Amino acid sequence: MPELSQIVADIAAEIRATTDRGTVADYIEPLARIDPACFGIAITTADGTEHVAGDADAPFSIQSISKVFALTLALGAVGDQLWKRVGREPSGSAFNSIVQLETEHGIPRNPFINAGAIVVSDILLGRSAPGEAIGELLRFVRGLAGDEAIFIDEAVARAEQDTGFRNIALANYMRAFGNLVNSPECALGVYFHHCALAMSCRQLARAGRFLMNGGVIPETGHSIVSPQRARRINALMLTCGHYDGSGEFAYRVGLPGKSGVGGGILAVAPGIASIAVWSPGLNERGNSQLGVLALERLVARTGWSIFEPREGG
Amino acid sequence: MPELSQIVADIAAEIRATTDRGTVADYIEPLARIDPACFGIAITTADGTEHVAGDADAPFSIQSISKVFALTLALGAVGDQLWKRVGREPSGSAFNSIVQLETEHGIPRNPFINAGAIVVSDILLGRSAPGEAIGELLRFVRGLAGDEAIFIDEAVARAEQDTGFRNIALANYMRAFGNLVNSPECALGVYFHHCALAMSCRQLARAGRFLMNGGVIPETGHSIVSPQRARRINALMLTCGHYDGSGEFAYRVGLPGKSGVGGGILAVAPGIASIAVWSPGLNERGNSQLGVLALERLVARTGWSIFEPREGG
Amino acid sequence: MPELSQIVADIAAEIRATTDRGTVADYIEPLARIDPACFGIAITTADGTEHVAGDADAPFSIQSISKVFALTLALGAVGDQLWKRVGREPSGSAFNSIVQLETEHGIPRNPFINAGAIVVSDILLGRSAPGEAIGELLRFVRGLAGDEAIFIDEAVARAEQDTGFRNIALANYMRAFGNLVNSPECALGVYFHHCALAMSCRQLARAGRFLMNGGVIPETGHSIVSPQRARRINALMLTCGHYDGSGEFAYRVGLPGKSGVGGGILAVAPGIASIAVWSPGLNERGNSQLGVLALERLVARTGWSIFEPREGG
Amino acid sequence: MPELSQIVADIAAEIRATTDRGTVADYIEPLARIDPACFGIAITTADGTEHVAGDADAPFSIQSISKVFALTLALGAVGDQLWKRVGREPSGSAFNSIVQLETEHGIPRNPFINAGAIVVSDILLGRSAPGEAIGELLRFVRGLAGDEAIFIDEAVARAEQDTGFRNIALANYMRAFGNLVNSPECALGVYFHHCALAMSCRQLARAGRFLMNGGVIPETGHSIVSPQRARRINALMLTCGHYDGSGEFAYRVGLPGKSGVGGGILAVAPGIASIAVWSPGLNERGNSQLGVLALERLVARTGWSIFEPREGG
Repeated sequence: MPELSQIVADIAAEIRATTDRGTVADYIEPLARIDPACFGIAITTADGTEHVAGDADAPFSIQSISKVFALTLALGAVGDQLWKRVGREPSGSAFNSIVQLETEHGIPRNPFINAGAIVVSDILLGRSAPGEAIGELLRFVRGLAGDEAIFIDEAVARAEQDTGFRNIALANYMRAFGNLVNSPECALGVYFHHCALAMSCRQLARAGRFLMNGGVIPETGHSIVSPQRARRINALMLTCGHYDGSGEFAYRVGLPGKSGVGGGILAVAPGIASIAVWSPGLNERGNSQLGVLALERLVARTGWSIFEPREGG
Repeated sequence: MPELSQIVADIAAEIRATTDRGTVADYIEPLARIDPACFGIAITTADGTEHVAGDADAPFSIQSISKVFALTLALGAVGDQLWKRVGREPSGSAFNSIVQLETEHGIPRNPFINAGAIVVSDILLGRSAPGEAIGELLRFVRGLAGDEAIFIDEAVARAEQDTGFRNIALANYMRAFGNLVNSPECALGVYFHHCALAMSCRQLARAGRFLMNGGVIPETGHSIVSPQRARRINALMLTCGHYDGSGEFAYRVGLPGKSGVGGGILAVAPGIASIAVWSPGLNERGNSQLGVLALERLVARTGWSIFEPREGG
Repeated sequence: MPELSQIVADIAAEIRATTDRGTVADYIEPLARIDPACFGIAITTADGTEHVAGDADAPFSIQSISKVFALTLALGAVGDQLWKRVGREPSGSAFNSIVQLETEHGIPRNPFINAGAIVVSDILLGRSAPGEAIGELLRFVRGLAGDEAIFIDEAVARAEQDTGFRNIALANYMRAFGNLVNSPECALGVYFHHCALAMSCRQLARAGRFLMNGGVIPETGHSIVSPQRARRINALMLTCGHYDGSGEFAYRVGLPGKSGVGGGILAVAPGIASIAVWSPGLNERGNSQLGVLALERLVARTGWSIFEPREGG
Repeated sequence: MPELSQIVADIAAEIRATTDRGTVADYIEPLARIDPACFGIAITTADGTEHVAGDADAPFSIQSISKVFALTLALGAVGDQLWKRVGREPSGSAFNSIVQLETEHGIPRNPFINAGAIVVSDILLGRSAPGEAIGELLRFVRGLAGDEAIFIDEAVARAEQDTGFRNIALANYMRAFGNLVNSPECALGVYFHHCALAMSCRQLARAGRFLMNGGVIPETGHSIVSPQRARRINALMLTCGHYDGSGEFAYRVGLPGKSGVGGGILAVAPGIASIAVWSPGLNERGNSQLGVLALERLVARTGWSIFEPREGG
């Protein structure tokens, strides 16, 4: 296998030359004006080495990738009680579908579809004010990445709030079933803000290190979650991390991952690397078209798929 | 970590002592009369060692586990053309649901729900007679396991055929959409017969070795599928192998696996082991209740989950 | 109001001149080759007068209109026990939808969608042979119309049987829920044959007289059903007679009616008239496009809508 | 037939003696504390005679019955343009289901389910303030009934607003599809207020006279809608007026009608009578259990079903 830095550079060059880049999300203005030609990739390996290429230091809206951090924090707060209010199964429908909630009594299928993440936001909120919960989440993510420069893009949060009728519908619908403790407005306040986290590929790859490393940040040795919880979060990312394209992502890439409508993907190769890619154009399932392609090529050239024989097995 | 043989023996003893064993499938007589106290486990490791315990040599009806072998054979016959007729996403519904077919124009969500496996059977059938297709599949599975004693339980096949109204409905429904080439009767003939394969845990674990080993049977060096295809089949097993309990299985066990209503599960630890367990009582999702528990304990004690850091990474 | 005979002649002339005639059903050859220019209308009034125009004496395939006669006969056989196996609500979905059956445990929403009519056929079958049940239904319809020339078009029945995969799926699906007593094949045999009844508009209007007249054939004084049952069948025709276009038909026409995919419609103006129209081209809901238009105009010019003030009220 | 006044008195006595009275709606306190023993009936015939019994002058919350008046007013404002935003078909699901909206792009099935009535409220709102739209509707209903004492129960409106999470979800969901022009809050403000109309049976029967009389209030000769529109509204009440119990109501009663969760029903016998009944206990479909029974008996004794032969036909 060639040097990883060469692989990363090659992939960035290939992606740069690709013309069919998918469609940039345009439901809010701050996303719509992102240049589809952007591409970034950052890999943090188990030994702490970083390989980056392209726009790896440009902050972008991580959107649904934040659901991984929100879930991690909420599990820390309430433990497995969380699973009484959210399922752990792929949904078989779009990320913002409401259909399943009607037949399943307001219990979202998993924490990575919008409805599930709103319940997680309600848990994060607890009895505090939205501002506090958002502040706590921001501190948590900064701590994971070891980078105080990470910020919440207020313009994105505001735009989501102004146009997020479907999410408002989801929140109120679940409230009707008693599956929100706080007001829909407050839960959505937390939700819209954590989705508005702005991070670069480098920051995102760093923030994902604990998932690659059995729950521990390698650099600091700080334990974020137990090894069991780390692998369970990885499992959820694998089965549910790409909405109704999760099966396809597992088939093509074969890594636990979570995508966001801003075009980012966080992927985890357990024991090996934490990886972030960013390309704003989306495919028809709402996942980054070239981000998936970049990861597919990375895995093909490194053999990092979790479905391949372990060399040290 | 204690010796694997000790782990296997311990798990068998623990499972034997468990009283809440789930419910044995009773929709056909040959399954209904199986003793719920049965339990078998067999592990074939990458180096060819076998560890077994309990009723590891008693043949049982592998039922839906056969869908993995049928898919493998069909991919060999028609390649990725197969994916024009079957999807690769978790279904979000029961194994025998027909709802999804109506909105998705007769294309089943994946090859491991009943509808998908009936299309796969139609592909296996091709232009030959059902008897030939069944014979070919039987030879294929015998070859994988290296055991000519594997057989098809005709009493099971007949009972399925006599009572399989829902499967007949699925087949005719897909035929109405043009997604069966042969008559529903013939496609179902193949389907009911491959589901009636009778295998022991030992035979099943052996038959799964190629999936653990990059597509090659370790013992013989015979290449069944390419490494890429092997890992893709593993990915499908992970996301879709346990019907609407696939997310839960990934969360608790963390291995690609495929369950059958006869109480068996085939699980794959890539590069490490091929594992078969059997306990006839099912949980509410139709998966072996104690089979899942046994695998959960095995993985907890061995660290074989694909979501854990690779030691050799 | 002008003379009824003039109204009928005018409507026939207008319909003849209409160019947008809808689409002739082409799923079986005997229907596909019907000339879309055909149009017939026949009205039998309470006093026994008949007004006809166009191809009023040409037999056509009445298809689903036969479900009214099958229901009437089945209610005579088993009474209100029938409603344990079939509902009385509009379905909100297509005539051949299977989705509702999954969530509602194999109980079809009403006797006028395909699934419901297959259960009715199973009831008609009882413990007799399909041939007997079909013969009895044919005699019943001949008696209603007072015309021994009515026949079953075997070519249509055979073509339905050869291509009716969706109906076979429905029957087997309900059988899986235990809502068929006989084999799906036998119930479908009855179903496909009664749908293959060939009748002219004149014969059909005559056969519907009992529904207009409180259950009694005016000409003979023979009581077919009680007045209560006659009005209940009318109510079912109003709410469920045009599949997922029933609301539209009530809105535009305002008469109990039942359409068939052959392009016929039987409509009932209680106390006033029994009406049959036929134009083979269908609208997007599967109802005769010009048949509905002809009835809409008839009602507009006669004031026969059941939703208008009764003059003798 | 006995005198109508005797029939009405008999029915009231019979209903009073019935012990199985259904379940009073308890989702808001002002409804929950209504005495289930209440029963009122009022009939206004074409000649202006009134027959009342029981609590016919006690105001109750008409709830969804108000959807008929709102629709009438909205049709007056925008005409048949309204049907671009609302369908005319029975829904086949519960009054507050959101499932259908997802597959049908935010277009509610009919104006009598909650989603449809919220769109109608949005139309009533137009470009005015909620207070004005509510005032206009109140004046309209007062005019129909000829009674300035009719009022909106602010306690009910407030309670609905505080607990109406499902309706808020519906409104936001349709807004996401662009099928609300105003903010969900404003459209819901109108909706919750018109549902909070308080009327007695006598007032309600009077308000329904124009539907019985071809669009004209008999007493004043004032034309509210055209005869065609009157019969079309009647048709909609017949097919959609009782949610997913509309087929059953047509089958048992056979009159256009609209029920409300407060236990009231408005029914129309075209050319004959406008009828209001009230009994707070609901059946499992959300319709007044004894209200339906009272109407079934009334029709059985008077022959007023629209599905019976017209005597003057």
